[in-house]
Amino acid sequence: MSTITTTAREARRDIRAGDIKGQTSGMASGFVQANLVILPKDWADDFLAFCHFNPKPCPLLGMTQPGSPTLPILGEDIDLRTDLPGYYVWENGVRVDHAHDISSYWRDDLVGFAIGCSFSFEHALMDAGIRLRHIEEGKNVAIFRTNIECSPAGRFCGPLVVSMRSMTPTDAIRAIQICSRFPNVHGAPIHFGDPEAIGIADLNTPDYGDVVEVQAGEVPVFWACGVTPQAVVQASNPPFCITHAPGSMLITDLRIHEVSLF
Amino acid sequence: MSTITTTAREARRDIRAGDIKGQTSGMASGFVQANLVILPKDWADDFLAFCHFNPKPCPLLGMTQPGSPTLPILGEDIDLRTDLPGYYVWENGVRVDHAHDISSYWRDDLVGFAIGCSFSFEHALMDAGIRLRHIEEGKNVAIFRTNIECSPAGRFCGPLVVSMRSMTPTDAIRAIQICSRFPNVHGAPIHFGDPEAIGIADLNTPDYGDVVEVQAGEVPVFWACGVTPQAVVQASNPPFCITHAPGSMLITDLRIHEVSLF
Repeated sequence: MSTITTTAREARRDIRAGDIKGQTSGMASGFVQANLVILPKDWADDFLAFCHFNPKPCPLLGMTQPGSPTLPILGEDIDLRTDLPGYYVWENGVRVDHAHDISSYWRDDLVGFAIGCSFSFEHALMDAGIRLRHIEEGKNVAIFRTNIECSPAGRFCGPLVVSMRSMTPTDAIRAIQICSRFPNVHGAPIHFGDPEAIGIADLNTPDYGDVVEVQAGEVPVFWACGVTPQAVVQASNPPFCITHAPGSMLITDLRIHEVSLF
Repeated sequence: MSTITTTAREARRDIRAGDIKGQTSGMASGFVQANLVILPKDWADDFLAFCHFNPKPCPLLGMTQPGSPTLPILGEDIDLRTDLPGYYVWENGVRVDHAHDISSYWRDDLVGFAIGCSFSFEHALMDAGIRLRHIEEGKNVAIFRTNIECSPAGRFCGPLVVSMRSMTPTDAIRAIQICSRFPNVHGAPIHFGDPEAIGIADLNTPDYGDVVEVQAGEVPVFWACGVTPQAVVQASNPPFCITHAPGSMLITDLRIHEVSLF
């Protein structure tokens, strides 16, 4: 069990110091984690529209001023250039770097978007006695591209990406109830059961993240995922973009129970 | 589509007049329907305890005074002897009659229990665009005994009985959300998917109700059912008991949105 009990601020400090370079699932129990998308200002309005019309994969928690790497509403000391364990850098829809610090890439016209991440509700699920195999095994979740198209907005379009957690139907019903309270970290799942029904050919070859086993008596449960913008960037070819590396999230000072719907 | 839009009071009047003798699914849109259990007073305390410790199958909405067939908190004019389209009469756990009026069986020591029925939330599901095949086909739901044991209480014990509705995973997720708001008409499902996981060998041979097809791309979804007391009566052998006939419910004046949790 790799759950690390720290505050969000302590976790960010360790990440900023370079002590953590992997995935953040299970870290900073009870704090909201966020996906990151950074785009040049002339693409930012289109992306804001994309988030608005795709709230399941892209629940927008915060947005920076152009050129500013800070996001004080999510944490007073946050610096988006250093506070995530891993980043992907994209040019014209092609990944050109996997970095752990993006200070050298920073520009005055960049706008950062923080998008709620499903890691945020994992502790709420575990508090309800639901076992999460990827956390128990110290892995990232398994993440898949689907055949479901997002609602296009401006120059952005592309497929919905989902994270998968495997559990019994009884636990899945409880997870649906619990996650319904947290729409701004993806909320309820979008599918369970047959992976092919949403265009996933093989659960053992995730498009991102790690392979996580589905055991007998369990069903795979699929949540809309904040890696969706990365598939959208690949489909939409903005000249420049930086995202988090899948599983390497921004840990915010928001507490999950602060953002519950009820 | 056999949905009949009437008020609860009009539906009870038609049933009392003997014009309706079958099942009540789809009738009196938006009103809470109830399962019925009638027991001699010396068995009633045990049954109250059974309801308390089995709230999923037996969410108790109301209970009569001994000897009284009225239940004014659920409807001013309710007479439990005449207001359901069908009744089963049980002696020592064996069914001895299927009646449409139980006036001749009434005794001064009988206590009636009204237990929330899943028919109550079906209109909330249909209002959300979820199609219910048994209603579209004018059938009763399919009802099955499971291998899940209820919590025993006093002299009562027996298996959990479930109703089945078939739908896509997307609709099942929405149904779980909607039904979670209505715990006193069985609330969220208790299982979906593999019937054998809860001891159901064949979906085409329901123990009560009608056969309802599960089509390609759908999963069977199982709700705790108020027919459970009938399986419990068969297992626990009270000397005398009257229940509703499966699917032939008491239609109450409560509106489903009056009893929603939130």
